[in-house]
Amino acid sequence: MRGIRMGRISSMPALAVREVTMRRMGTWQVLARQYATQKEKVVVLGCGWAGFRFIKDLDKDNYDVYVVSPRNHFLFTPMLASTTVGTIEFRSILEPVRTETSKKGFHYINAECVDIDEDSGKIRCKSAIADSAGKEGKEFDVPFHHLVVSVGCLPNTFGVPGVEENAFFLKEVGDAQKIRQRIIEVLELARMPSVTDEELKRLLHFVIVGGGPTGVEFAGELGDFIRTDMQKLFKNLPRNSAKVTLFQSTDKILAMFDKNLSEKAVRQFEKSHIVDVRTNCQVESIDKEKITLKGGEEIPYGLCVWSTGIGPRPLLRHLQQKQGYEMARGTRLVVDDHLRVKGRKNVYALGDCAAMESQPDIPATAQAAQQQGKFLAAEFNAMAGGSDIKPFRFNNLGMMAYVGGYVSLFDTPQLKMAGLTAWFAWRSVYLTKLGSIKNKFQVPFDWTKTLLFGRDVTLFTKSKAS
Amino acid sequence: MRGIRMGRISSMPALAVREVTMRRMGTWQVLARQYATQKEKVVVLGCGWAGFRFIKDLDKDNYDVYVVSPRNHFLFTPMLASTTVGTIEFRSILEPVRTETSKKGFHYINAECVDIDEDSGKIRCKSAIADSAGKEGKEFDVPFHHLVVSVGCLPNTFGVPGVEENAFFLKEVGDAQKIRQRIIEVLELARMPSVTDEELKRLLHFVIVGGGPTGVEFAGELGDFIRTDMQKLFKNLPRNSAKVTLFQSTDKILAMFDKNLSEKAVRQFEKSHIVDVRTNCQVESIDKEKITLKGGEEIPYGLCVWSTGIGPRPLLRHLQQKQGYEMARGTRLVVDDHLRVKGRKNVYALGDCAAMESQPDIPATAQAAQQQGKFLAAEFNAMAGGSDIKPFRFNNLGMMAYVGGYVSLFDTPQLKMAGLTAWFAWRSVYLTKLGSIKNKFQVPFDWTKTLLFGRDVTLFTKSKAS
Repeated sequence: MRGIRMGRISSMPALAVREVTMRRMGTWQVLARQYATQKEKVVVLGCGWAGFRFIKDLDKDNYDVYVVSPRNHFLFTPMLASTTVGTIEFRSILEPVRTETSKKGFHYINAECVDIDEDSGKIRCKSAIADSAGKEGKEFDVPFHHLVVSVGCLPNTFGVPGVEENAFFLKEVGDAQKIRQRIIEVLELARMPSVTDEELKRLLHFVIVGGGPTGVEFAGELGDFIRTDMQKLFKNLPRNSAKVTLFQSTDKILAMFDKNLSEKAVRQFEKSHIVDVRTNCQVESIDKEKITLKGGEEIPYGLCVWSTGIGPRPLLRHLQQKQGYEMARGTRLVVDDHLRVKGRKNVYALGDCAAMESQPDIPATAQAAQQQGKFLAAEFNAMAGGSDIKPFRFNNLGMMAYVGGYVSLFDTPQLKMAGLTAWFAWRSVYLTKLGSIKNKFQVPFDWTKTLLFGRDVTLFTKSKAS
Repeated sequence: MRGIRMGRISSMPALAVREVTMRRMGTWQVLARQYATQKEKVVVLGCGWAGFRFIKDLDKDNYDVYVVSPRNHFLFTPMLASTTVGTIEFRSILEPVRTETSKKGFHYINAECVDIDEDSGKIRCKSAIADSAGKEGKEFDVPFHHLVVSVGCLPNTFGVPGVEENAFFLKEVGDAQKIRQRIIEVLELARMPSVTDEELKRLLHFVIVGGGPTGVEFAGELGDFIRTDMQKLFKNLPRNSAKVTLFQSTDKILAMFDKNLSEKAVRQFEKSHIVDVRTNCQVESIDKEKITLKGGEEIPYGLCVWSTGIGPRPLLRHLQQKQGYEMARGTRLVVDDHLRVKGRKNVYALGDCAAMESQPDIPATAQAAQQQGKFLAAEFNAMAGGSDIKPFRFNNLGMMAYVGGYVSLFDTPQLKMAGLTAWFAWRSVYLTKLGSIKNKFQVPFDWTKTLLFGRDVTLFTKSKAS
């Protein structure tokens, strides 16, 4: 067994790595000693659905794991929209990577990988935290035998001017925090004595660009908040003054869903009298207080959330341009059906940053990423035992989305439904899938608190606007 | 009754106020109509212990209340230190002012008062929120019959260079959030492969300047966090590498407490082997990564919290310099024993921003502020009924402080104790005093979660340093 594994990393004998490492680590002997174990080093970039599943399933008796990620937690993305209005609290859907590192053979470095040197078996990292105010994060190398690239993706502005500066993304929990802050801010602004009718209308117009699951779920949660807590806590606002408009560039929102379910979502929004769906609308530009559609129509807004699609992280661009890594659709690393990056020996890619040449239709979803993480861990575990496993096959388990007013869509190959029953299913399934016991304990508590006491509207973080 | 009340505001007939208000409000008729009720308008600046108690107790059948405060929530300060390490979550000790505004006769404006014009019965306000990125908050007037100044105070740097730029205050929940963020950041920095022994020692040195209740409780909570969660989650750090130093300028920490209890706190810290108390140390300056004591000693640190005393808010300085308001010790408005500001007719001051001429020894504590808020509400309610009440008398109920390791100090006129029993008393008393049912529901849940799962160490807000 040992022989087989060593054969795979013959370009970089373990002893040499250890010596290089020891020299590089400087005076801090403790960490140097960690680097100097006999086990093979697996470096994992990122801790989203793919990476986090991989590191949880990997057998740490056979491998030393180093997670390198600027984000020190796993985020349970299906509930992210719920945190934007406080139905669920932010920390309730996060799992710190550090909880895993309390186990043996597991290390975490809060840094971003900026370059990969496969030949010498090391990556270049930049600390995600500055030593003190104004300083840049320090750079350093981390050696590897196997490198797993699961860095995910970034929101894509598609080059529309003003998106970066004026719109909010909804990708990380920090984004949700900023959105929650701004929702309360515009409500407070709308209650200032100096506000005019026109300003009031603008402030309370919430614009969402992109009718995918994220945009739709945010519209649903925001509609719930407006109908319940806003009406109660900001009582003197004119009735029906708050509106949500969901812009979709094509003719159909939730394009991945069954047609009937997607239409059900539109009807549910119509029924709410809060969310207005506008299809076939392309955004030309976004200014501080208005968006302009192709064709010239100008739409004033108080908050704009941009959720239209995904693009590559800087590392991927760098690998493509400087190191000749092959990319699919310019955004994802091409991998074989064992998730190995095309033309590379010890580099793997999975999740949203990978595209499988043999199965180009695998969607960029949490489900696919998690299945790939699970697959790769099984492959590594088998490899350590000297055996092989069958190529990766995506297993479509279906999709769910919440559209507000206790209505969810439930779309599986076996069963399609929408409504209250689907909402119960939505809550039950996600509660089961929430990783840690702590979160399974916290989320139902949050739901109960919201039901009994409403959502919290305190402001205590400084926003980018103030 | 009506005649008596009108007599008090003869300088500003209600009708004139209404007309002025209607003109000023512009087109937004709804708010204008609120301003135009027949009830007297009480404008309250701030919603801390004094202001929040006052508005809760005031009879809204007799008065229209306008709270003007840049902070849209009440903060339960005795548990603030617990939130810096996540023993309790931030929102668990906050009460949104908006919850009160859902009641009749109650209005809230998220703004800061920048000037008072007593003669024309109005204040100048500046919105605490910008309309959009980069804009200044708008200015507008709010009319009043009675003005209650309960703006509290600011942390005092005593002119020590570098405090504003490099140290963290611990006054608001936003401060606690930044401290929590930075604690995790320095721990992550300490685990970077590039760190040297010297850097490691600096990063894990937590400095607290000021040995009052806030500084001491923060030291206690931080010690708990280091002993439990840090040891578990950042396991490869050298043993005993994290240290806390508490600097006190005089010869005794917790000077307000009984001498035996204050000594007990010092012994408890010694026993912890984490917190080191250094008395008779004055800070000369604070740089990015070190503080310098008077005498020249330089002390490297990873995090510095400054909690030495209180100073006046900009409004108070303005009133003193531009409007000739009399101040006690240069920081607090002088009031009579009915909390009326000296030389003013319709302006009251209470809490940390007021000093009673006849009782100069009332401490700047939550307890005193709350008693004053209660008193003033009773006075206003009596006034509406045409009667008077006796002058304010401070009733000292004692003090409590948590010093870590399940040890609290309990110092009342009747009973003084320290230890586990006092810790139970500390938790019980504060749990009872937590205002809302929501928080009484949430805080024990947080305690349980911390006990079962430890404190959360996720990072998701951008800090000033990164």
